[in-house]
Amino acid sequence: MTQALALGIDIGGTNTSFGIVNRRGEIIAKGNMSTTGHNTPEDYFIALKKALHPLIENAGKENITGVGIGAPNGNFYTGDIVFAPNLPWHGVIHVVKILSESLGMKVTLTNDANAAAIGEMMYGSAKGMKDFILVTLGTGVGSGFVANGQMIYGHDGFAGELGHVIAVRDGRKCGCGRNGCLEAYASATGIVRTANEWLEQREVSSILRNSKGSITAKLIHEAAEQGDAFALEVFDYTAKILGQTLADMVAITSPEAIIFFGGLAQAGPLLLDPVHKYMEENILNIYQNKVAILQSALPDADAAILGASALAW
Amino acid sequence: MTQALALGIDIGGTNTSFGIVNRRGEIIAKGNMSTTGHNTPEDYFIALKKALHPLIENAGKENITGVGIGAPNGNFYTGDIVFAPNLPWHGVIHVVKILSESLGMKVTLTNDANAAAIGEMMYGSAKGMKDFILVTLGTGVGSGFVANGQMIYGHDGFAGELGHVIAVRDGRKCGCGRNGCLEAYASATGIVRTANEWLEQREVSSILRNSKGSITAKLIHEAAEQGDAFALEVFDYTAKILGQTLADMVAITSPEAIIFFGGLAQAGPLLLDPVHKYMEENILNIYQNKVAILQSALPDADAAILGASALAW
Repeated sequence: MTQALALGIDIGGTNTSFGIVNRRGEIIAKGNMSTTGHNTPEDYFIALKKALHPLIENAGKENITGVGIGAPNGNFYTGDIVFAPNLPWHGVIHVVKILSESLGMKVTLTNDANAAAIGEMMYGSAKGMKDFILVTLGTGVGSGFVANGQMIYGHDGFAGELGHVIAVRDGRKCGCGRNGCLEAYASATGIVRTANEWLEQREVSSILRNSKGSITAKLIHEAAEQGDAFALEVFDYTAKILGQTLADMVAITSPEAIIFFGGLAQAGPLLLDPVHKYMEENILNIYQNKVAILQSALPDADAAILGASALAW
Repeated sequence: MTQALALGIDIGGTNTSFGIVNRRGEIIAKGNMSTTGHNTPEDYFIALKKALHPLIENAGKENITGVGIGAPNGNFYTGDIVFAPNLPWHGVIHVVKILSESLGMKVTLTNDANAAAIGEMMYGSAKGMKDFILVTLGTGVGSGFVANGQMIYGHDGFAGELGHVIAVRDGRKCGCGRNGCLEAYASATGIVRTANEWLEQREVSSILRNSKGSITAKLIHEAAEQGDAFALEVFDYTAKILGQTLADMVAITSPEAIIFFGGLAQAGPLLLDPVHKYMEENILNIYQNKVAILQSALPDADAAILGASALAW
């Protein structure tokens, strides 16, 4: 008897993880490999095919409906990864073309945040929701906007770049070349920039001063958990900028919920409670007390695979 | 032989216009009445029924598929007009309930900007587009966001309040009680505020100085057309704030086009060319030179009726 399965692949900056997923959203087999250390994209895809081989064999190729891939700057319409600053390769990579030919299966690609949004909608916090925003707080800030139960891809497949909405006019330099992007403040790297800048400028006592030069988002989170006043202030500032920007986003798609995902989101209420507070303070009255602020309900390591696999259905 | 017709009603702050529309988007009969001067909403709807009567009789009630209404703060899901600051009545008005009972027809309501967006999609500049933004520049700033060929209503029917996105943090007071909303700058009233504030503060020579105290958006437009440097500077400033905000909106829904509608949009290239320039200057590289800036292709007086009628299909 055949079983409906899907193969989900999450291509991250350093690690690629993949798994075979059933209709109930259970990962029945999984694996991973390094994204880096391959000379060319072609070499990477040859290694990926090799790594996938045992999983596909075990599940039975005929049982696999298709392959879904989430990757930074992955384009749903073209099937290409386009100029992804966090991946080892540059330019345009024809992922769907390469992998569908080498695996002999139907392959669908989208960007990592959209994949996470689809995963949340099928198996996570957004189950049953038709209008929500998924925000990934990782190295960068990504997002997937869902309206009328459908992912908003935009006319070119590039919709949902919340990280590059200008949060502070004429603010900090962003990796994209412009100034004041949300990503320059509310990502794991942005929050570290805030801490470093402030430690440079001010005489404050903080656990973090000992780690100066090697501060990470995780260290700030740990310091905040221990009640370090400086770390809490950094969180509060980050939450303010994020909450203000989200208040504007609510005015566009009026979502039922905003769901947070990714490394920095694991700070949970320590970050999300003030985000909620600042969003409400800045929101238009008709939206007040309507929008839930939620954390992803999917185990972080699996969510990306689940989200990617959900594309294949 | 029966003909498929729809009745479109546009409820504006001062005037209500309506028309019988056929499938090709031709208004075969129309009329209008005052929105104001009625003691209660009930009185207004009795007068509206009376005004509609001859059109419905002539067209034949059995030929009319349904009634579509566009109104400020009209909610698609609830069928109510909710706290519309630009209408003579306050509180919640159950428009769909009242009119469907009194006319004995199927009635659908949405807000005026959404109705205009649907009109553009069916008969105007957005024909064939699946992803676009309609922006109304009138007394206020309204918007309708369309993605995947569908209007984004949001979970509560209140999506698309572009006028209340914060364009200038801690900026001008807005009618909504907050500060810096786009509407406080880029509407007909906003542009008048800019002109008045600047005339107050500065020694500039301008045709507009003669009209101080009674400046309108139309006067600014006319002065700009005559090459008045001050009026052109006011347009440029307005366009900058609008273009910056639109650059952020593109990052959310990645539309094929942004279409402008309403009184202030009639300034055409004089306003829209600098809007386009500032949008491009502020946009993330992946969206550069992709988004068309268009003026509504529908005759202004008819567009609202067409848009409203399109709801009925």
